Amino acid sequence: MKAASDLTADIERPILYFAPDTCSLASLIACYDAGMEPTVKEVSFARDEQLGKAYRAINPSAKVPAIVFGKDIVVETPAILMLIAQLAPTAELVPVAPVAQAKVQAFNSYLCSTLHVAHAHRMRGYRWLDGEEHEEAMRQKVPEAVDVCYAHIEHHLMQGPFVFGESYTIADPYLFTISRWMESDGCGPDDFPKVAAHRRLMGERTSVAQALAIEAKMMADNV
Amino acid sequence: MKAASDLTADIERPILYFAPDTCSLASLIACYDAGMEPTVKEVSFARDEQLGKAYRAINPSAKVPAIVFGKDIVVETPAILMLIAQLAPTAELVPVAPVAQAKVQAFNSYLCSTLHVAHAHRMRGYRWLDGEEHEEAMRQKVPEAVDVCYAHIEHHLMQGPFVFGESYTIADPYLFTISRWMESDGCGPDDFPKVAAHRRLMGERTSVAQALAIEAKMMADNV
Repeated sequence: MKAASDLTADIERPILYFAPDTCSLASLIACYDAGMEPTVKEVSFARDEQLGKAYRAINPSAKVPAIVFGKDIVVETPAILMLIAQLAPTAELVPVAPVAQAKVQAFNSYLCSTLHVAHAHRMRGYRWLDGEEHEEAMRQKVPEAVDVCYAHIEHHLMQGPFVFGESYTIADPYLFTISRWMESDGCGPDDFPKVAAHRRLMGERTSVAQALAIEAKMMADNV
Repeated sequence: MKAASDLTADIERPILYFAPDTCSLASLIACYDAGMEPTVKEVSFARDEQLGKAYRAINPSAKVPAIVFGKDIVVETPAILMLIAQLAPTAELVPVAPVAQAKVQAFNSYLCSTLHVAHAHRMRGYRWLDGEEHEEAMRQKVPEAVDVCYAHIEHHLMQGPFVFGESYTIADPYLFTISRWMESDGCGPDDFPKVAAHRRLMGERTSVAQALAIEAKMMADNV
């Protein structure tokens, strides 16, 4: 695994700051897809560690994921996924040609700015308004708002079996991660057969199994 | 302006689908920064053209911007900005080294998924809930939610004078575009001196003047 890089650190051994049941799963899967051996550090939301001084020194915006290569810290899922892909070119996780690459980035940008945001209104309404009755109004709308996003993905973006057809890219672990929340967001996978089939297909990947095993162990340890 | 590309179309003459007073301004500025001569097509929000069949054939999610090179359509601001930068390498709008490039992408990802979203709750609350009293609660919170984002940018992300120090990148037209809405979002530029200075500095650029002239003419024609 070689890449022209501005990194002095060992490319194959990043530290990934991770929390179970968050979008940080996408970056963990991508690390394994890339053949990396990440050290996974849990940021416990139950203990509000994301708000603590130690984690804010890593990411002052108090969100996961963050990935660290030596002294370099990179945050935000779309940026981390692209970085992983670029550092591991032989894994071919993203097209090299600019337009094809831009289309992958556009998909991931849609996930972070639209689908993930629609989902977040279910648990994190306090970011955007005050008052329980208003937060409840927000939660009521989540199934509809999330449904609009999956319909767009199903009918306009998703080629199948992977997001970009036969080629696995960094769009896939990101969609898989978010689509795991579909039922709890009030959307039925039956309405989105391509997205549902994608979730099953992803479940067969070694990288996904590795990442889910780490998440499951963390959740078990936290009980 | 040459780049290894999967494009057959003329790289210097894209079509940009644009609406005044939206984030599509960032892509227009970047086109000029890259030495492109875009054909700017207005998508009139006043006439709901973004929802019409013709524009949905360009972008089914009914949002601007979209950029078209020949038969290739790319949407989502962070993806468009990176594509423009990659197609015009001599303009040096983004670092080539992976980590430095990822940090630019992380900044733009923060803008699209957090700052722009916080702003959008002022006018587009209907996306996330139903009921005027709840939308009003959302609008009430906008100054606080947007303020949190600018504080993060001012104190943690912004190097100054440009976002990434002395080097102009595709982070700059995006921040400039969104920060124009600061006052109407209820935030004072006095609280964010680096962001305010950035806005003034950007106002001196030829590319920004070119883009603003096109936007101004469009707005005048619409009166």
